Amino acid sequence: RTMNYGKEKVAVYRTYANPLEGVRTIPESSFDGRDNILFGLEVRVQFEGEEFLPSFSEADNSKVVATDSMKNFVLHQAGEYEGATAEGFLHFVGTEFLKTYPHVEAVKMSAKEYPFDQRMVPGDDGFEPSDLVFRVSDDESAFGEVFLERKEDDSRIKEQTSGITGIELVKVKGNSFTGYVQDEYTTLPEREDRALYISLDIFWTYSDPEDALGEEPQRYVPAEQVRDIAQVVFHEVDSNSIQDLIYQIGLRVLERYSQLESVSFEANNRTWIEVREDLEGDAKVLREPPRPTGYQQFSMDRSDLEE
Amino acid sequence: RTMNYGKEKVAVYRTYANPLEGVRTIPESSFDGRDNILFGLEVRVQFEGEEFLPSFSEADNSKVVATDSMKNFVLHQAGEYEGATAEGFLHFVGTEFLKTYPHVEAVKMSAKEYPFDQRMVPGDDGFEPSDLVFRVSDDESAFGEVFLERKEDDSRIKEQTSGITGIELVKVKGNSFTGYVQDEYTTLPEREDRALYISLDIFWTYSDPEDALGEEPQRYVPAEQVRDIAQVVFHEVDSNSIQDLIYQIGLRVLERYSQLESVSFEANNRTWIEVREDLEGDAKVLREPPRPTGYQQFSMDRSDLEE
Amino acid sequence: RTMNYGKEKVAVYRTYANPLEGVRTIPESSFDGRDNILFGLEVRVQFEGEEFLPSFSEADNSKVVATDSMKNFVLHQAGEYEGATAEGFLHFVGTEFLKTYPHVEAVKMSAKEYPFDQRMVPGDDGFEPSDLVFRVSDDESAFGEVFLERKEDDSRIKEQTSGITGIELVKVKGNSFTGYVQDEYTTLPEREDRALYISLDIFWTYSDPEDALGEEPQRYVPAEQVRDIAQVVFHEVDSNSIQDLIYQIGLRVLERYSQLESVSFEANNRTWIEVREDLEGDAKVLREPPRPTGYQQFSMDRSDLEE
Amino acid sequence: RTMNYGKEKVAVYRTYANPLEGVRTIPESSFDGRDNILFGLEVRVQFEGEEFLPSFSEADNSKVVATDSMKNFVLHQAGEYEGATAEGFLHFVGTEFLKTYPHVEAVKMSAKEYPFDQRMVPGDDGFEPSDLVFRVSDDESAFGEVFLERKEDDSRIKEQTSGITGIELVKVKGNSFTGYVQDEYTTLPEREDRALYISLDIFWTYSDPEDALGEEPQRYVPAEQVRDIAQVVFHEVDSNSIQDLIYQIGLRVLERYSQLESVSFEANNRTWIEVREDLEGDAKVLREPPRPTGYQQFSMDRSDLEE
Repeated sequence: RTMNYGKEKVAVYRTYANPLEGVRTIPESSFDGRDNILFGLEVRVQFEGEEFLPSFSEADNSKVVATDSMKNFVLHQAGEYEGATAEGFLHFVGTEFLKTYPHVEAVKMSAKEYPFDQRMVPGDDGFEPSDLVFRVSDDESAFGEVFLERKEDDSRIKEQTSGITGIELVKVKGNSFTGYVQDEYTTLPEREDRALYISLDIFWTYSDPEDALGEEPQRYVPAEQVRDIAQVVFHEVDSNSIQDLIYQIGLRVLERYSQLESVSFEANNRTWIEVREDLEGDAKVLREPPRPTGYQQFSMDRSDLEE
Repeated sequence: RTMNYGKEKVAVYRTYANPLEGVRTIPESSFDGRDNILFGLEVRVQFEGEEFLPSFSEADNSKVVATDSMKNFVLHQAGEYEGATAEGFLHFVGTEFLKTYPHVEAVKMSAKEYPFDQRMVPGDDGFEPSDLVFRVSDDESAFGEVFLERKEDDSRIKEQTSGITGIELVKVKGNSFTGYVQDEYTTLPEREDRALYISLDIFWTYSDPEDALGEEPQRYVPAEQVRDIAQVVFHEVDSNSIQDLIYQIGLRVLERYSQLESVSFEANNRTWIEVREDLEGDAKVLREPPRPTGYQQFSMDRSDLEE
Repeated sequence: RTMNYGKEKVAVYRTYANPLEGVRTIPESSFDGRDNILFGLEVRVQFEGEEFLPSFSEADNSKVVATDSMKNFVLHQAGEYEGATAEGFLHFVGTEFLKTYPHVEAVKMSAKEYPFDQRMVPGDDGFEPSDLVFRVSDDESAFGEVFLERKEDDSRIKEQTSGITGIELVKVKGNSFTGYVQDEYTTLPEREDRALYISLDIFWTYSDPEDALGEEPQRYVPAEQVRDIAQVVFHEVDSNSIQDLIYQIGLRVLERYSQLESVSFEANNRTWIEVREDLEGDAKVLREPPRPTGYQQFSMDRSDLEE
Repeated sequence: RTMNYGKEKVAVYRTYANPLEGVRTIPESSFDGRDNILFGLEVRVQFEGEEFLPSFSEADNSKVVATDSMKNFVLHQAGEYEGATAEGFLHFVGTEFLKTYPHVEAVKMSAKEYPFDQRMVPGDDGFEPSDLVFRVSDDESAFGEVFLERKEDDSRIKEQTSGITGIELVKVKGNSFTGYVQDEYTTLPEREDRALYISLDIFWTYSDPEDALGEEPQRYVPAEQVRDIAQVVFHEVDSNSIQDLIYQIGLRVLERYSQLESVSFEANNRTWIEVREDLEGDAKVLREPPRPTGYQQFSMDRSDLEE
């Protein structure tokens, strides 16, 4: 049966965490590491184990670790973690949970990483990133999940996923949508050239989940780079649909990172509707679409590279 | 691989739909049917099928039914449906989709039902429900999902779930939380008597999924009745935890409806924090908790009744 | 200059507060009081006074009451208040603030009241309201504001407003919208009979602001009754616009409560768009409108009754 | 009496609008103009005039311009506007409204500008901003408001405000909060050095409102520069409170722009709570505060510069 419990929306912030250094660079991105002067996560903890059944069926709390204590545990460990990545932190805390509570069989730790942008301030040689002031951004954010299960005296990673969620991009021209099914339910006009507005979540898994922890930075895939691949491919490709676009992004991600096993997408179409096309040159006036939202869910693995 | 696409957040409203009549009543609820003068759903459509692969890998849209057309299809069928339930409507539309588009292998239809409350107006014999004016409520709402797959010349229900989501209840006294693990991470005080505030989603499946469609109203389980069971059990039981409470609710639901196979829960704890306990009698002052939220996920089936 | 500061979003809950009894009833509503077993407000505190200027211009905090202390103050006073209304509580706390901090010149207290619905449970004579279990509703909620200023050794009410916000109502037929300006920018079709969906905030002021405190329940105007007037007038009137509808509601409110000086409205039009009108009888299929929202702001006083 | 109506949440997008060029630069910011390849606003329109009274009191719609037509009007004019600023567009549309509808006495136009970030892509000389792909950001956004009233055969600006809203900044150290009132309601500890997290809306008015339109770019105050001033002052100043900080920001804004008459602030305090201070160096672990939020509202004008 499904049986688990835990704590979610645990916001934890750490100042002057260890920097992420030594990551490999790729042609699509200038990202090569980050200071981690400010490192923040919204964490979710999930405990599993047969010994929790009496808390449901017999009102027996003797094995229940209060979810408030889970929160305290996560906050405490944020001071102990010596790595530099969200996935590494989740793995560290999950392992500590399994060590501390022997009746817990498995722990699923996941987090959204808060995006903090260093702000530019005047320095000796023009503008430079402040080491003190950060924007708390609502833009795209990294995601990590590590599912650990007890294995004799130790724990092992049962599943691991990394990602970046909340990417929102508009490309103002160079996108078409034509050739789809036409029937009595079709009212959407075909477009040879449209402004395309997508929101996008991208997830990936490693062949060896240990690579996700960042202990070997050369093998770590930073979410910032994957976001930059999405932007650059969107810029380069004249796509005929969102399906077409995400397939191209997926191929590029798998090409750049041989350590990845798979990449998957959740895309939403928020494309604006044209109101005036009678203006000079490429200029147009557009409006927001009604709320119903088209979406795509799609996964790819290394076999897609071979085609 | 994961491969699907569709349309979500399709709001569809139907006035003067067929009434739901002939449902069986239970001791916990006065609900025995509804007029359906106003019937509204937020629908999600999901198409699956191998023939969609070229739309991703080759930018070939020839098999793509535009998600805008899916929306038009749903809106049209809302005028054709002659039943009285959300699940029935989803099944009807899904079946029509499979008939219309032979390359689609499976369709998953789901919906949240908008809650409309009839408002009371003065009538000949005191106040009575208006047949014209409804409140658009943001309170708990029914949920339905029907996953249909093509089966030779016909379709069959592969999975079906019904539910009610967004229940939010406070019980002002008669709840304890004691006897849990005490260690260095524990700061939460034990409570012999607390105000307990839960939010709750309840889902259920039928032994025969056809019973979910409402064509035999005697075998249909209305979401309003399940909500009422949750309220009444909460009122009756002095619980020692949310785990304990949802187990009691689950037993009652399975007892009342022998046609159900399983019931499952997603619960959140939003319990307020006591600020003043020095007042007369049971009176207290309480404040909102910080955002981190305890949760439980739990499923039960008929075997739980035997214990 | 504008200069104030304070605390907002202070959620305060009080169990077993004093009941509101002895309110006058009106033909449009069955409301005649409430138990206040559960009474909750989201409070906003605003301090004003010239002595706060040095905290801005000279970084001198010596006169600054920390906003965290304001929150503690509000929570404490929730145990001291012996009345039964939101407005009375705000007046009570504001007066205590002015007594406690002599350098504060004026205090503006406002609040949204959390709506808690008593849930029905089986009793000896059929279903009755539970005295233990309440729904935490997201529907319409009462509003109160009391602006107090220091006056020699005492305080006086400078401004007072009461209200109810977040009313959302649909009337399924009997509403028209015709005869408006037709020109090159007009694409909206005239409608002789439409489903009309409005959201509505209603505010009122008393001739004597002391009447708002509820100490003389006969002179108190409960938000529940004003909401019921809105519903009943909507049910009764065939309106030709939202403007027409809110004017009728305003007249009814001023007629029912001679102690009120004025009533004002903020209305939004969320009317659905017809998709199918080819169905039998009054049945229709409708969809959600795009996001742009028409609104009306309008105030009335007793002179409007004379016309 | 209050009497107005209109349309809000009108999202309008224009591609390849005219660039903003020739703005004066300041030491705190590298902003010197923008391409306006993608220009988007969420617009609010408000009509006022005595001739609208019969639409309320007599259900007479003959003078009512449907709010749907207002939306169409705004969308159309987005193709006609030849300037480069939000304020200029609002002034342009408002003037057209007054010309087109002679019974309208005054029009208030306001808008939030959607922030679109150009994304970096590989170019011949390293990374450069894409002229095709933009991020739809949820970060801070510019605000404009122009209130026009009819004046004989012409219109004039009655009030004008510009601003930037939704700035969210954390400074990880160098902020104190000490010396405030200590009494029985005080539980907040004094802090010599804290991480300070503020959200901030800044508004400004010009001595000559025509300067807000951007027709003389040298006299236009770009919201991007004001945001950068806020960031740089926050970086430079060791503040003893938010009050102290916003006063310093206000002085800097008034110093940089002699064409401004006033600047005002709405600030919120979201400062995190320290959990661990036992770590090496400046490192700390912090958590989110509960929801109650301290705020400040403050306005300044040129006389504040003289002190």
